[in-house]
Amino acid sequence: MDTNHYGLPDKKKIVAVREIIASQVHRTPSLTSISLNEITGSKLYFKCENFQKGGAFKFRGASHAVMTLSQEYADRGVATHSSGNHAQALALAASMRGIKAHIVMPENAPRIKVSAVESYGGIIRFCRPTLPDRESTLREVIKECGAMEIHPYNDYRIIAGQASAAAELYEDTPLLDCLVVPVGGGGLLSGSILSTRYFSPGTKVFGAEPEQANDARESFQKRQLIPVRNPSTIADGLRTSLGSLTFPIILEGAEDILTVSEEAIVLAMQLIWERMKIVVEPSAATVLAAVMEHPENFAGKNTGLILSGGNVDLYRLPWMDKTITNH
Amino acid sequence: MDTNHYGLPDKKKIVAVREIIASQVHRTPSLTSISLNEITGSKLYFKCENFQKGGAFKFRGASHAVMTLSQEYADRGVATHSSGNHAQALALAASMRGIKAHIVMPENAPRIKVSAVESYGGIIRFCRPTLPDRESTLREVIKECGAMEIHPYNDYRIIAGQASAAAELYEDTPLLDCLVVPVGGGGLLSGSILSTRYFSPGTKVFGAEPEQANDARESFQKRQLIPVRNPSTIADGLRTSLGSLTFPIILEGAEDILTVSEEAIVLAMQLIWERMKIVVEPSAATVLAAVMEHPENFAGKNTGLILSGGNVDLYRLPWMDKTITNH
Repeated sequence: MDTNHYGLPDKKKIVAVREIIASQVHRTPSLTSISLNEITGSKLYFKCENFQKGGAFKFRGASHAVMTLSQEYADRGVATHSSGNHAQALALAASMRGIKAHIVMPENAPRIKVSAVESYGGIIRFCRPTLPDRESTLREVIKECGAMEIHPYNDYRIIAGQASAAAELYEDTPLLDCLVVPVGGGGLLSGSILSTRYFSPGTKVFGAEPEQANDARESFQKRQLIPVRNPSTIADGLRTSLGSLTFPIILEGAEDILTVSEEAIVLAMQLIWERMKIVVEPSAATVLAAVMEHPENFAGKNTGLILSGGNVDLYRLPWMDKTITNH
Repeated sequence: MDTNHYGLPDKKKIVAVREIIASQVHRTPSLTSISLNEITGSKLYFKCENFQKGGAFKFRGASHAVMTLSQEYADRGVATHSSGNHAQALALAASMRGIKAHIVMPENAPRIKVSAVESYGGIIRFCRPTLPDRESTLREVIKECGAMEIHPYNDYRIIAGQASAAAELYEDTPLLDCLVVPVGGGGLLSGSILSTRYFSPGTKVFGAEPEQANDARESFQKRQLIPVRNPSTIADGLRTSLGSLTFPIILEGAEDILTVSEEAIVLAMQLIWERMKIVVEPSAATVLAAVMEHPENFAGKNTGLILSGGNVDLYRLPWMDKTITNH
């Protein structure tokens, strides 16, 4: 079954996804923080995907894609190009099914990311660090071993898996007026929009995006998919462009895409670490940054926020880097 | 009611404490980590007091002491000398009851600790940074305003409050073979021993202590209270000596006091941040360090660990300080 056969995830499919992946994913907690409620003037419910296996929500989609492969396809393994959380998630999901995961990574990928993929048993193929090189190397790998490509976000099986995070949040919280979700390629945001439509239709869904990578906002406003150009944000998970499958769902279902400054991302990340005592990555912090920089949407409301991941290099924290916090 | 009237906490008292403070404290979660289980070969259950109000278990005891004051005493306020988590906890507990907390702090206390106490409405009196100065300044404050001293650990009301953490852990986990608790002044360890005696008598309780501040181990082995001399550990919460009330309980009920190296504390802290995605302070990390440096006690066992707090200066992380990690 490839992604076209799976089709747009409807309510029944998302209910089924949750059962399929239940034994593999963590049902992550939803946390609250009195002091962050006071600071923002909103009542915040944080869905902690930083506690997810592999350290990010990405494992939900990867697990779903891998679990639903027919045995014939599974035997050939899966493949992707990624230097981020999807690479780890796919390697982990594949190892849990006992199949191979071929991960194409740029040769300059951070050592910490390479060793994370290795620790999950992923088979790494290095390439030069350009998108054409990554794509051509991936095509080679697929040609050689017949592995199925699992795209990080532009795949309905992935979108359906990511949808499970918001579905769980809606079960665990009072009625939410708003939900704020980071947007990079749009897998988590489009999945969250679908779960909102089916399970909490009164909730308004906002995307949160760095100003320095504001392609989703531009695309949303101009109603056409505009790829990101030279993103220079600290939120490394959000430097990608929307996909042909994620964009239409976002265009139809998002209330707005809110952009946030680099300073606000760093401040929000630091506040989450200090006040909630949890480790989140910059991409995850964009949701609190959005609430702080756009309070008019959230004041006095019940607001859900998806903390997308917690994979950070503990030796390079942004508030210690003056070139980032003061630029 | 002063601490002598309260007396050694029996089972009935600890049950009562939990009801008294239930509306004030967080019932913190008990977390597990597959990867830390694999690393240690033990099945670990972490009681997350880093998520407690004020960022540490200290709020349990402070809340209990403040809540049980008669109105007459409460009207005069409470007082303590502390530059650590107890200062914050007492200020917060007092503000929740609407009474005054006088906190004597050394004039060289870190700004971050001073502002935390201020943020909870504590009234700070600075003094010179020696123990005699702290004690004489506290006596002055008490003389001036009639406030009741709430000692950070050598007080049965405090010990009974700290006992509630282990009592909750026992309710939330399978039968634990061992429990590991950081030991500084001994309030948390003695409280944990009492809760173990009453609620999980088959569990062996270990104290975890830095080699660089090994007074509890020395006292335990020599069966006499030996004050700490020049502690130079990164675990700033564990630089104090045992008290006359905590020591006998520890002597009678602890299985052993395990010391840990500074390197192990830093490594354990980093592992907890990386693998569990939670922020803990060095004192809290001693418990995992103890499991890693003394595996013979814990291999194949169900082991509870109390993560005592999460108050760290995010600008000064120990793994970035080569003088600490490599000395």
